[in-house]
Amino acid sequence: MFSWGQFRRVVGTVTEVRTSVISQLQLRKIASDQLRYSSSMADKFKLPSRYGTGEKSVWVEYIQLAAEYKPAVNLGQGFPDYPPPGHVTKALAEIATGDNPLLNQYTRGFGHPRLVQNLSKVYSPLIGRELDPFNEILVTSGAYEALFSAILGHVDTGDEVIVIEPFFDCYDYMITSAGGVSKFIALKPKSNSDNMTSADWVLDEEELTSLFNEKTKMLILNTPHNPLGKVFTRAELEVIANLCKKHNVLCISDEVYEWMVYEPQKHIRIATLPGMWNRTITVGSAGKTFSVTGWKIGWAYAPANLMRNLQVVHQNCVYTCSTPIQEAVARSFEYELERYNTPECYFFSIARELMPKRDYLVKTLRENGFNPTIPEGGYFVVADWTNLADKIDLSSEPDKYKDYKFTKKFAKEAGVLTIPPTAFYSEAHKHLGENYARFCFIKKDENLQLTDKLLREWNAKK
Amino acid sequence: MFSWGQFRRVVGTVTEVRTSVISQLQLRKIASDQLRYSSSMADKFKLPSRYGTGEKSVWVEYIQLAAEYKPAVNLGQGFPDYPPPGHVTKALAEIATGDNPLLNQYTRGFGHPRLVQNLSKVYSPLIGRELDPFNEILVTSGAYEALFSAILGHVDTGDEVIVIEPFFDCYDYMITSAGGVSKFIALKPKSNSDNMTSADWVLDEEELTSLFNEKTKMLILNTPHNPLGKVFTRAELEVIANLCKKHNVLCISDEVYEWMVYEPQKHIRIATLPGMWNRTITVGSAGKTFSVTGWKIGWAYAPANLMRNLQVVHQNCVYTCSTPIQEAVARSFEYELERYNTPECYFFSIARELMPKRDYLVKTLRENGFNPTIPEGGYFVVADWTNLADKIDLSSEPDKYKDYKFTKKFAKEAGVLTIPPTAFYSEAHKHLGENYARFCFIKKDENLQLTDKLLREWNAKK
Repeated sequence: MFSWGQFRRVVGTVTEVRTSVISQLQLRKIASDQLRYSSSMADKFKLPSRYGTGEKSVWVEYIQLAAEYKPAVNLGQGFPDYPPPGHVTKALAEIATGDNPLLNQYTRGFGHPRLVQNLSKVYSPLIGRELDPFNEILVTSGAYEALFSAILGHVDTGDEVIVIEPFFDCYDYMITSAGGVSKFIALKPKSNSDNMTSADWVLDEEELTSLFNEKTKMLILNTPHNPLGKVFTRAELEVIANLCKKHNVLCISDEVYEWMVYEPQKHIRIATLPGMWNRTITVGSAGKTFSVTGWKIGWAYAPANLMRNLQVVHQNCVYTCSTPIQEAVARSFEYELERYNTPECYFFSIARELMPKRDYLVKTLRENGFNPTIPEGGYFVVADWTNLADKIDLSSEPDKYKDYKFTKKFAKEAGVLTIPPTAFYSEAHKHLGENYARFCFIKKDENLQLTDKLLREWNAKK
Repeated sequence: MFSWGQFRRVVGTVTEVRTSVISQLQLRKIASDQLRYSSSMADKFKLPSRYGTGEKSVWVEYIQLAAEYKPAVNLGQGFPDYPPPGHVTKALAEIATGDNPLLNQYTRGFGHPRLVQNLSKVYSPLIGRELDPFNEILVTSGAYEALFSAILGHVDTGDEVIVIEPFFDCYDYMITSAGGVSKFIALKPKSNSDNMTSADWVLDEEELTSLFNEKTKMLILNTPHNPLGKVFTRAELEVIANLCKKHNVLCISDEVYEWMVYEPQKHIRIATLPGMWNRTITVGSAGKTFSVTGWKIGWAYAPANLMRNLQVVHQNCVYTCSTPIQEAVARSFEYELERYNTPECYFFSIARELMPKRDYLVKTLRENGFNPTIPEGGYFVVADWTNLADKIDLSSEPDKYKDYKFTKKFAKEAGVLTIPPTAFYSEAHKHLGENYARFCFIKKDENLQLTDKLLREWNAKK
């Protein structure tokens, strides 16, 4: 405890001086004095328990790592390092300075009308039903906020949510903050051959069945899958769908990589399976669809009764999304819908553009001691580095998990930044991800070639 | 209850037909059949109790009203109907199609570096301390998400939050969803003269004091105030500050209208009062600062220990904000900082631009039977319509509160859309706002003149 007199004297001093006359160093000194006096404040102003310890996410840590060590190639976060389609960025530029000033002001909270109308045009034929633009679609601040609204809008204290590992790390934070309990099940490789594809990573049906009970509110599916690239087959989706129907469970289907699916695989929307429309909330992303991850526009679609809950959460946290960006995404969809039946349509050309990048990276990894799983979708490769374990001394990295040690050492020594997959596993299952690293391949050819060069040099030194 | 066989037959049918071959009407019919079979689903998938009944906000209702009745003038929502400063929109256009493709991709989650650095440059001199751009500032999806992160990041089950009425309606939803309890105190007019200003609306110090107790976690201040336009004086802020210090209470200061303050009033930041920096989270808005409400970029600044909690909430709900928009806001700040000491600087010219609009609207309202409170800040006028009560038949409007009845009738009859202030009061205090309507005056002169014409015509008909 401290006396109020002491407190006032210290804090009062600070506000009476001007920055211009005292140095930053002095301010730091005063700030640290204040800290000593404010321990009881800190107790009272601690993080509410629903957020756990509030640890930093892998993204914060690895973006920091990139800033510090400046690796020559960043294959960490999932975004292209080359320009998006010209018509997309041109649309935003035209809107910003165009002759309709209202496009820089608030729009409809649940989604800009032109955007939800276009989303309905894109998805209605894909799901075989007419999507009501105003009641069955919500536009969000990225797919991230769509997941947040779907999870917070349905998960209540004690509800159980089935999460398939490895998983996009935010799922578990969101479930926990809603008072829910995550129940994890891992995709496991059927074998550990030298020629694995993401189809070899499968769920054990018996194990999955055992997770369903009367407390189960929701299952979160991600197809195409990040980080494995798995594209769930119809048979696999049917197993999930039948369990959801049997136990009256909601399915959140995170389909942000829906257009990055490599021949001969096909993306199947679980909402189109018999009996699933009524219990599925599907999430999509403009950032992934148009290669503009920094635009932060996503969406969810589902029956109106389910969407109502998402609307309430959305109107409680951000209320509405950027108007010029939503208008630009709407016009981008119109542009693609115009050329939907041509090979140039970006929805289809993107996979053709990415496939050689995938193949190049897989080859590079194989030739340099990794055992990569060939992804059928998405833009990541997960690669096993067990065979390189004796080449790299991990003892200097203080992290708990081997993949954190490996990826940090690898970034510093080889100059290639990747992501440690244990970030995508629950505590109990982290050992399943420890021998892997995640590589992103939506990168310029020259950066993939540089990766190849760096890996060869690194290998030669060992 | 329904049998699974029935359910599967009905739902299965839907997914097998294609939109192209059945009409929307048929789909609606099937959808309504499905609804009948899904009552037990609805029970299980209801809104979690933390969101209450999830009622629609006043904004959803009145934007809908505007769409339906197309009033000739919309003085409802707070945004300009004329273009923002040219350099602001030009910056966005240049970024979208510029030669740095990374400006369309993910940036730092807690705020784009160039933006937080500029926010530090703007605010450090104003608060008399050097703001650490990376630990004391968070960029959010509008000031709305800054409020969300500040409230959810600190309010835990049973915590009490003091809210000054009338209040921006989201405060209470956010407090309740965090498990907190709002404790309301209303600003009340000292008299009801014909020449009132927002300074005449005051808090009763004794009543305010009585609300503080050991459960009080937070007080939310809004200055300049929406909707009254009140600019809290130093003496008024000191009363609040002293109570917050005495009871170890956090102050959220919503200052989004910080640049819209009319001579001779001055905006005072409560964070600069002795002993307040350590317990104040200040919220600002690019939308309000640069007249681009549709850009949805806001921020909060406070000591690092308080900001940490906001970061956790932010990384849990949206994770990061739009990169091109953040970069454009950063460049806009740089532009204004360059001309900070000239009369052209938008931070100062905006109030000069708005003052004649305010005065014109006040005169129009007075000459047409309203009793407006002259606002010292912000861009709203709250006007008492009691003297017009006998001119307007409110019986046809089914709403519970008179101001809802009045504003709806007024929009339909006079063609002028305004907002009912009871939306900004707690249930127990709604009677305090029933005789008022809120008018926004950041509108083209021709639309303010049209308002004058419409009011005269409406009055003449009565």
